[in-house]
Amino acid sequence: MDSFNVGLIGAGTVGGGVVKILAKQAAFFSRGLELPVRLTRIVDKDSSRFDSLPVGDAVCGDSADDLLNDDSIHAVVELIGGAGFAKTFVLRAIEAGKHVITANKALIAEYGSEIFEAAEKKGVAVYFEAAVGGGMPVIKTIRESLIGNDIRSVKTIINGTCNYILTRMEREKLPFDVVLQQAQEAGFAEADPTLDIGGGDTGHKVAIMASLLFGGYAPFEKMSIEGITSITAEDIAYASELGYRIKLLGIIREPHDGGPLDVRVHPAMLHREHILASVSNEFNAVLLNGDAVDDILIYGKGAGELPTASAVVSDIIDVARNVAEGAPVRIPMGFYVRSREMPLQSIDDIVVRYYLRFTVIDKPSVLAEITSALGENDISIASVIQHERHAGDRVPVVISTHPARESDLQRAIAAIERMDFVKASTQIIRIED
Amino acid sequence: MDSFNVGLIGAGTVGGGVVKILAKQAAFFSRGLELPVRLTRIVDKDSSRFDSLPVGDAVCGDSADDLLNDDSIHAVVELIGGAGFAKTFVLRAIEAGKHVITANKALIAEYGSEIFEAAEKKGVAVYFEAAVGGGMPVIKTIRESLIGNDIRSVKTIINGTCNYILTRMEREKLPFDVVLQQAQEAGFAEADPTLDIGGGDTGHKVAIMASLLFGGYAPFEKMSIEGITSITAEDIAYASELGYRIKLLGIIREPHDGGPLDVRVHPAMLHREHILASVSNEFNAVLLNGDAVDDILIYGKGAGELPTASAVVSDIIDVARNVAEGAPVRIPMGFYVRSREMPLQSIDDIVVRYYLRFTVIDKPSVLAEITSALGENDISIASVIQHERHAGDRVPVVISTHPARESDLQRAIAAIERMDFVKASTQIIRIED
Repeated sequence: MDSFNVGLIGAGTVGGGVVKILAKQAAFFSRGLELPVRLTRIVDKDSSRFDSLPVGDAVCGDSADDLLNDDSIHAVVELIGGAGFAKTFVLRAIEAGKHVITANKALIAEYGSEIFEAAEKKGVAVYFEAAVGGGMPVIKTIRESLIGNDIRSVKTIINGTCNYILTRMEREKLPFDVVLQQAQEAGFAEADPTLDIGGGDTGHKVAIMASLLFGGYAPFEKMSIEGITSITAEDIAYASELGYRIKLLGIIREPHDGGPLDVRVHPAMLHREHILASVSNEFNAVLLNGDAVDDILIYGKGAGELPTASAVVSDIIDVARNVAEGAPVRIPMGFYVRSREMPLQSIDDIVVRYYLRFTVIDKPSVLAEITSALGENDISIASVIQHERHAGDRVPVVISTHPARESDLQRAIAAIERMDFVKASTQIIRIED
Repeated sequence: MDSFNVGLIGAGTVGGGVVKILAKQAAFFSRGLELPVRLTRIVDKDSSRFDSLPVGDAVCGDSADDLLNDDSIHAVVELIGGAGFAKTFVLRAIEAGKHVITANKALIAEYGSEIFEAAEKKGVAVYFEAAVGGGMPVIKTIRESLIGNDIRSVKTIINGTCNYILTRMEREKLPFDVVLQQAQEAGFAEADPTLDIGGGDTGHKVAIMASLLFGGYAPFEKMSIEGITSITAEDIAYASELGYRIKLLGIIREPHDGGPLDVRVHPAMLHREHILASVSNEFNAVLLNGDAVDDILIYGKGAGELPTASAVVSDIIDVARNVAEGAPVRIPMGFYVRSREMPLQSIDDIVVRYYLRFTVIDKPSVLAEITSALGENDISIASVIQHERHAGDRVPVVISTHPARESDLQRAIAAIERMDFVKASTQIIRIED
């Protein structure tokens, strides 16, 4: 192999970062590692993007076909995103016998099974380190470094937009909408932030991790996913009073005795001494617990031009090393996302602690009626906060519970919300200890 | 390859952990990964160790020669430690054409150059993930995941014994000796703790990281290494008053303009909001800063039976994957530890902030004389703590400085210690911001 030839589609933020890093590291890769990596083609609809990039002697154009038809290209890097044209492109690249490197979490989470099957049949590799946690080595750590472990649980803060918003809401005591707008202005939130603040982006990443960890297909579309849009500054203040911080968590817990997998995304209260509670602003972290290694935390920037490009480039070198050594599919993918779909635990069956914020008219019997409804549904109370107010006003009553089953909790809340003193829907936030 | 055959020498704590994990994961490795790994021989002088381990059909004995002469063995796992017999054994294993997996940081740090040269000549691999940070994937992250980065700095807490002692000294307000004894009783310190508390163990790990990161040999024997034995409960209390925690840090900073590499081990004060300041007890962490990825932190258990064995097993699988694919030396080692030795920066030339604790007789002119001696040597003062005492007693005067050159600082301290009111040698702790 004279050189390992790479074609790139999508020269936006991350793609631009990849072009920059490959240019910067070219001499090191070719002389230090003896792996001459050449970026030979770049495809983007917007030709103005090429102007500001160190494209070297790469052929720049707007035709995906030119890239797919170029037999000298060993691997393509897909950075267009989404599960539409990107999916077609990736499947065509595999069919053309090219290795694929992608940062596309939606594509892998929703169509990984189909893609890996096609890749296995064709004998090419699909690498996707950048799809989960940007610059953090999450995929490699799961697939290689922790291979001797049964992973018991994963807890992760893996969406920088949500973490930035929640951090700012806590520190500045500002409401969600104001901070979201600031985040958009600062470049930490998209113009359409739905996938981030709705939890879908976290869900994609968690689905990929769950599939890798438990050797089956964790169906994204069946996961329980809640975002952060209902979190108020008031909840954050109460959390603080109780010694907690609110984070958007992705949670995976190993199945017990062949039962269903507990995998979900929702805002959660973490004790302020919990290591994940100190992950602030746009930073991400993945906390894995293995039966041999115990707790392992990986912390870093999960998004952004160069951090994400750093992961893409590590995949390029991984694949180049494999190809140079004649072992293109060193780590088979078929195993990880089998056609077998794993059953997921219903959110109704989880048992956790809860933070409940009721909005009620302040009159004498309220607390007694709420607590007895909770008791009748097997919900045991850990603490109550009710600050002094003027009678007759709407007041918040905040209750934290001992571990309870979600279905019991939902039944209790439904009963309480039928009471005439309840004036707004109840805020429910799970507490992760 | 019917099976990947492994021989193990050293069935102590970590070796026992490896035997246990290989037994537990055998079915997964052989059916899930299609890599049947067989532990075929175990060597230990103490035959009683075999009794409590799931050795399966491995031949157990006390002869290293039997292992080396067994042509069916593809890889040997060296877990005897030290740089004496272990070195001879590893070089003989390489000569016999066997791949080597080791957790031996002293061996790699002090003789890595010789070992990798022999391995390269023979076409075998030497893997050592467990040598740095036990269960944490430090080596793989440096060599593979961050390959697109120029690493600008590393700061690491990588010795569990020291971190446990410093954490307990701070929390219990106890002196070093008392906590060391407690740590020994709790199994967090060796009967002879010299290598840990003297900083040598941290030095070995930092030397390995520096060699990998900068592609040359970072000579362990020329590194500036200080341990934690001089740290007092008083220093920890003053650190706390100033907003800092004291940690034993390994520090690596990239060379500027081809200059020498700044690599050193010493106790350092970290601001309590620094992410490494929250790494407590026996936990370890490595904070890497790369030009693309920015800050990456890996946190976990850097020692102990199963965490360390987890890393050994990940190396076994890595090598087994390479051998199965016909690419035994997928990542050449020769590059990383070249015969070229890297020049190290003298500790005299570093520029950092300092915490200084003088022990003086409390009389009127003391502070003026100290501060003017500092000023004459270009040391600028950031803060002074002198609590009220009775005149005539020995009192501590605590000064923190702005960034200063170590040689200037040492000259100033020498001048001050010649003054007759100074009654004990001055405590100097570097501040890392």
